[in-house]
Amino acid sequence: MSPLSYKDAGVDIEAADGFVGRIRALAESTYTSGVVEHASRYAGLFRPDLEGVREPVLAATCDGVGTKLLVARQVGRFAGLGQDLVAMNVNDLLPLGARPLFFLDYVAAGKLEVDQLEEIVAGVAAACREVGCALLAGETAEMPGLYAPGDFDLAGFAVGLVDRAWLPEAGGVSVGDVVLGLPSTGVHANGLSLARSALFEHGGLTPESVDARLGRTIGEELLEPTALYVAPVLALVERFSFEAAAHVTGGGIAGRGRKLLGDGQRLKLDRDAFTVPPIFDLIAERGGVEPVEMTRTFNMGLGFLAVVKPETADAVLAETETPWLRVGEIAAGEAGVDFGDIRA
Amino acid sequence: MSPLSYKDAGVDIEAADGFVGRIRALAESTYTSGVVEHASRYAGLFRPDLEGVREPVLAATCDGVGTKLLVARQVGRFAGLGQDLVAMNVNDLLPLGARPLFFLDYVAAGKLEVDQLEEIVAGVAAACREVGCALLAGETAEMPGLYAPGDFDLAGFAVGLVDRAWLPEAGGVSVGDVVLGLPSTGVHANGLSLARSALFEHGGLTPESVDARLGRTIGEELLEPTALYVAPVLALVERFSFEAAAHVTGGGIAGRGRKLLGDGQRLKLDRDAFTVPPIFDLIAERGGVEPVEMTRTFNMGLGFLAVVKPETADAVLAETETPWLRVGEIAAGEAGVDFGDIRA
Repeated sequence: MSPLSYKDAGVDIEAADGFVGRIRALAESTYTSGVVEHASRYAGLFRPDLEGVREPVLAATCDGVGTKLLVARQVGRFAGLGQDLVAMNVNDLLPLGARPLFFLDYVAAGKLEVDQLEEIVAGVAAACREVGCALLAGETAEMPGLYAPGDFDLAGFAVGLVDRAWLPEAGGVSVGDVVLGLPSTGVHANGLSLARSALFEHGGLTPESVDARLGRTIGEELLEPTALYVAPVLALVERFSFEAAAHVTGGGIAGRGRKLLGDGQRLKLDRDAFTVPPIFDLIAERGGVEPVEMTRTFNMGLGFLAVVKPETADAVLAETETPWLRVGEIAAGEAGVDFGDIRA
Repeated sequence: MSPLSYKDAGVDIEAADGFVGRIRALAESTYTSGVVEHASRYAGLFRPDLEGVREPVLAATCDGVGTKLLVARQVGRFAGLGQDLVAMNVNDLLPLGARPLFFLDYVAAGKLEVDQLEEIVAGVAAACREVGCALLAGETAEMPGLYAPGDFDLAGFAVGLVDRAWLPEAGGVSVGDVVLGLPSTGVHANGLSLARSALFEHGGLTPESVDARLGRTIGEELLEPTALYVAPVLALVERFSFEAAAHVTGGGIAGRGRKLLGDGQRLKLDRDAFTVPPIFDLIAERGGVEPVEMTRTFNMGLGFLAVVKPETADAVLAETETPWLRVGEIAAGEAGVDFGDIRA
């Protein structure tokens, strides 16, 4: 029996160290003035700018990209997953009015395929740069036996900062308030299990199928990265204010919309005020998915909602080049969401 | 074709919501005074106590438990993994002198097996309570198609706080300094791929095998949770000080020990000053693993090291019931670690 080393057991420390060196350069490209460099590599260090913050509160999120991973593997394109991972986390800080400070990623694989993983981390770093959030640390785990070769998973963590006085208060939403929305780029990283089942299993399509309405393949459409909403939401928070907000993920536009409401309030969305991306029609058709189920699963074209007072809506929408759309209103009625004619 | 719902596609939102309710109670059992409760569930909120902290710096770590997961699945015992997950993260804050504030967990599975996952999260919560760290938020992802039924992965994320002036400075370690150590509870969550290969593949043992030196089965021994070092290290930081410190994980006692050293310094560990748990002898014997490779992979009985000035060592060790051991010294010599007779 020859002596056994860690590498023989399937863990290649040198390859892992090489990858770590390559991603360190990517991480450093995201560093903001808050990052504190230190010789010890045990933890990332960040000094938040607390000037003018009366009562600093940290906000923290944790999320993955779900089965969007499987679509990426089918198609063999991984570049967009990094933005999905960042977006799913930093967008979740925004309903609390929190500004993202830093992000960490966890990448686990059966066998480190360094080019593929570097493609993902490059996407993470690009998204972090776009939103001004430092990629502070991360973990790359090679776990032969848990993940099959080619299999991997991703998890992300984001920490943001908000002044306690800025946290939206319960009960701030009133009948007559205006609902502003930000367009989604498609399914984002939500409802992919249903989308895959509807399109591929029931619908007989493949990721290579081209649909005329999409103008590209289904795989390309499903892999469009999740929109980053940091800039428009922080502009709204810092220059105006909102009563409540939603990042539209699990539960869909109906589920997330409903959580904005107080007793006796109904969210009415104006179907003509925004575009429902054609991928949603295709999923509904191919899967025979009922309209209500669609609104309870998918964002249906709106990835972020903010409830504001009418005068705030007017001020926001009067700005040139605002990405915000006036998409609906808070009405009196039974708690629920009207998505055009669909009562959900 | 019957209408397709999200549940048909393999994602059971109701079961997930039920599980989330059960783990919420566990999370709440860990809440410290810093936790800010808020109706919005998008992010966990935490208000750090900054009183007396001149220059607050956040420290953040991300880690999983590696292939210890596979041993847990083989044995069918999951209760200890939660402590492993917390320990791998919060212990990594300690070489920077940072006090853990909060923790987040990511649990991904092919199919939510709620009893098994609740067992894990109960372990996470118990460990968080023990170290005074709030389990602030988490993500439970059900991903049919990525993980096989029964398969799951765990990732954790910890944030701590340190006053910038307390960060250990490079170059603080001198020849003549004393090395203090804290005992490990066994392999912790590190080197399991080599341990499994040595014991099970090469060694012909099974997790049920009983070894007389262990006094229990190999599975029970390997699953002993990673020690939590928060209390003794923070006591050292806050009442005394250290020059440099190491959480002994990847790279083993030799790799982690070496990173403590400046030029011309050698770490000499006194093999008689601490106990090498018998599991390490068993791994070396059954796998034919060379002594140097053992010290470069495993903690070999010491899970945490701190380099202190001689007078600090005397003061620490004079205390009754201190868990710290005087395990070695910084000598002049070629950079490296002497583990007793083993030059690594």
